[in-house]
Amino acid sequence: MRDSYHDQLDGIGEGLVEMSRLAGSAVSRATTALLDADLELAESVIVRDDVINQLYRSIEAQAFDLLARQQPVAGDLRVLVTSLRMVVDLERTGDYAVHLAKIARRRHPASAVPPELRSTILEMGQTAQGIVVKAGSVIASRDLSLAAELIRDDDAMDRLHGKLFTAMLSSTWKYGTEAAVDVTLAGRYYERLADHAVAIARRVSYLVTGEHVDEDALVD
Amino acid sequence: MRDSYHDQLDGIGEGLVEMSRLAGSAVSRATTALLDADLELAESVIVRDDVINQLYRSIEAQAFDLLARQQPVAGDLRVLVTSLRMVVDLERTGDYAVHLAKIARRRHPASAVPPELRSTILEMGQTAQGIVVKAGSVIASRDLSLAAELIRDDDAMDRLHGKLFTAMLSSTWKYGTEAAVDVTLAGRYYERLADHAVAIARRVSYLVTGEHVDEDALVD
Repeated sequence: MRDSYHDQLDGIGEGLVEMSRLAGSAVSRATTALLDADLELAESVIVRDDVINQLYRSIEAQAFDLLARQQPVAGDLRVLVTSLRMVVDLERTGDYAVHLAKIARRRHPASAVPPELRSTILEMGQTAQGIVVKAGSVIASRDLSLAAELIRDDDAMDRLHGKLFTAMLSSTWKYGTEAAVDVTLAGRYYERLADHAVAIARRVSYLVTGEHVDEDALVD
Repeated sequence: MRDSYHDQLDGIGEGLVEMSRLAGSAVSRATTALLDADLELAESVIVRDDVINQLYRSIEAQAFDLLARQQPVAGDLRVLVTSLRMVVDLERTGDYAVHLAKIARRRHPASAVPPELRSTILEMGQTAQGIVVKAGSVIASRDLSLAAELIRDDDAMDRLHGKLFTAMLSSTWKYGTEAAVDVTLAGRYYERLADHAVAIARRVSYLVTGEHVDEDALVD
């Protein structure tokens, strides 16, 4: 039987996995709201971010409590300090879903996504959801091959992001400045939330190997 | 005479202040590069970000070392964990300066800033530099009235950010999609780096009072 200290440590890990599940779902729903100009769905993403924020505060409080009362050393200390960073990545991922939902809300009843970019945004949304959920699996399993896969998924996201710019900067762009502003911001949000998932993958690699893989990409 | 432990703790604080000075300077130079289409200056911002990144790694290593070897409790523990977050805010601020400089580089020899937005971007750059340097002063002094001032400066930044959108979405916008994309991204970078300064102000408030002022605004 595990003692309460290790139960608490495990509880923090489980909380992080739950946050990634919620954040992945938020990103997926925000994408649908964006594509379908679904105001109700957009509002639900915005309102439900509070659940992610509450988990954030609860995990942070638990980690601080363990740090202060148990004075963990070596591996456990690293897990706690790393958890205090991953919880920020996941909270922030929820925020990006909210930002996407707010674009949908602002442009309702129109869709913020021009017809020719629908498939790219759909793919970005699917890639984003997948990468966030995968970040949760990496936290749970500490599987470094999955972490490497996640980082490759981010390359796919970067290519999709590039396609948005190619379309907007083409001479055939006919959707005006407002659509360009919205697509620029939406593209940035997808890219950034994928960056946070990559940061999580790298943080877990650090936990497993004790070595920073790529320091620059670690920070958010 | 102070012992080596408290010297190290102070050293971390001094490192954070130095990072904010460097980041403030980077933001200021990036703004000039953007306005004057100054390629050399843009390159220097990009290259010199490495100094900020090195400081980041060094402070992080020192904080981990103290956490592991000294097992600080209560106030000192809070300082260390908070420092591990502020160092990320400041590293990220340097990255935003690099992003701004890269816009300047991409558009060189043209300026990415249309004539009618020059004064707004100039003011955003000055506000940004001021707010980042002020974040350093808040770290050094723990002066909560200065922290409150910084948060008001961020309101000014939000208003300036709003002016960019008003200009871009006006029917008289005549600079095309490429300029709109660049201005959208630049505006976002200024806004985000000011957010990180606000996060620092709130983290210091938390250190002083032990209470989170506004949890949502704390996270980056």
